[in-house]
Amino acid sequence: MPPPTDHPARRAELVDLAADLIAREGLEAATIRRLAELAGYSTTIVTHYFASKHALLLDVYEACAQRAQARVDAVLARDPGDLQGCLEALLPIGDEARAGWRVNFAFWQRALHDPEFAEKQRWWTRRAEETVAAVIAARPGAKEDGLLARYLVTLIEGIAVRTAFDPRWSDTAQREFLRHELALHRI
Amino acid sequence: MPPPTDHPARRAELVDLAADLIAREGLEAATIRRLAELAGYSTTIVTHYFASKHALLLDVYEACAQRAQARVDAVLARDPGDLQGCLEALLPIGDEARAGWRVNFAFWQRALHDPEFAEKQRWWTRRAEETVAAVIAARPGAKEDGLLARYLVTLIEGIAVRTAFDPRWSDTAQREFLRHELALHRI
Repeated sequence: MPPPTDHPARRAELVDLAADLIAREGLEAATIRRLAELAGYSTTIVTHYFASKHALLLDVYEACAQRAQARVDAVLARDPGDLQGCLEALLPIGDEARAGWRVNFAFWQRALHDPEFAEKQRWWTRRAEETVAAVIAARPGAKEDGLLARYLVTLIEGIAVRTAFDPRWSDTAQREFLRHELALHRI
Repeated sequence: MPPPTDHPARRAELVDLAADLIAREGLEAATIRRLAELAGYSTTIVTHYFASKHALLLDVYEACAQRAQARVDAVLARDPGDLQGCLEALLPIGDEARAGWRVNFAFWQRALHDPEFAEKQRWWTRRAEETVAAVIAARPGAKEDGLLARYLVTLIEGIAVRTAFDPRWSDTAQREFLRHELALHRI
């Protein structure tokens, strides 16, 4: 049997399915076999795209991180100084972002015991810090030494964790909490 | 064979071993069989104490949460208004607290898909908020409406996540970051 042709669209479809599966049922559920069943492909085809569960998870995490970055970029394309909007785009507000954070939580669990996952997690967190720092710098009269960006990204991670387990943290509650903190920091 | 006698010390020993195992290797490693091997007991004895992995994990989480509370109580017994000390006792500073947070991360992954775990997680987070709110209220001239306590506990969760993956977040860096934030909030 000839190897299956590589279709970028098919790869993206599999990554989406795996992300949904992890968000809904957790990391253990996302096996190559289960993914093949959901997609209606053979496991041979799925393993053509992802040599292992490890490779699949790295791609899923990457895809979720890029989606979050795309949400942020869309906000900043309208207004490069929209700090509240940029941070809201990172928070678990809306279905896509909420699912992305559930993938994050699953990924963290792996990152604790796998240096490659930890490195990827660190890279994207620092990227978020750089983005936030640039937004702060784009605001009139801003003085940004990087610490404020670090604080805000840290707060975002904390809010995301709390939101995952506590229904009091609605979309509105997240936005208001953030607005209150930004006001306190006078930005 | 008569059922084994229940020894509280043996139960505590098993919980400690399981907590270490989860902190070092993750949730998947903490099987009843593996725990029995480590403790040098039969699986029959281990299942006498913990009917299932589910029951074991709930006890491990509870033990780690109570240890964190004991660290906080020790600080507050010396000075009921020591907010920096109380928050440091909650942060992943020191071996016991770092291991406790790694158990937390493992537990969160379960809590996303298990209401009983989520409820326990929520309960302990609110308990932390109440403790922090009481410390703020104990300080001279304090005005505490609960929002500041919520903010601080949220920040603690964020710092704990970052510390897990980024070596820049040393014990000293965590303490200084916290001190800086408390100063900004004028407490």
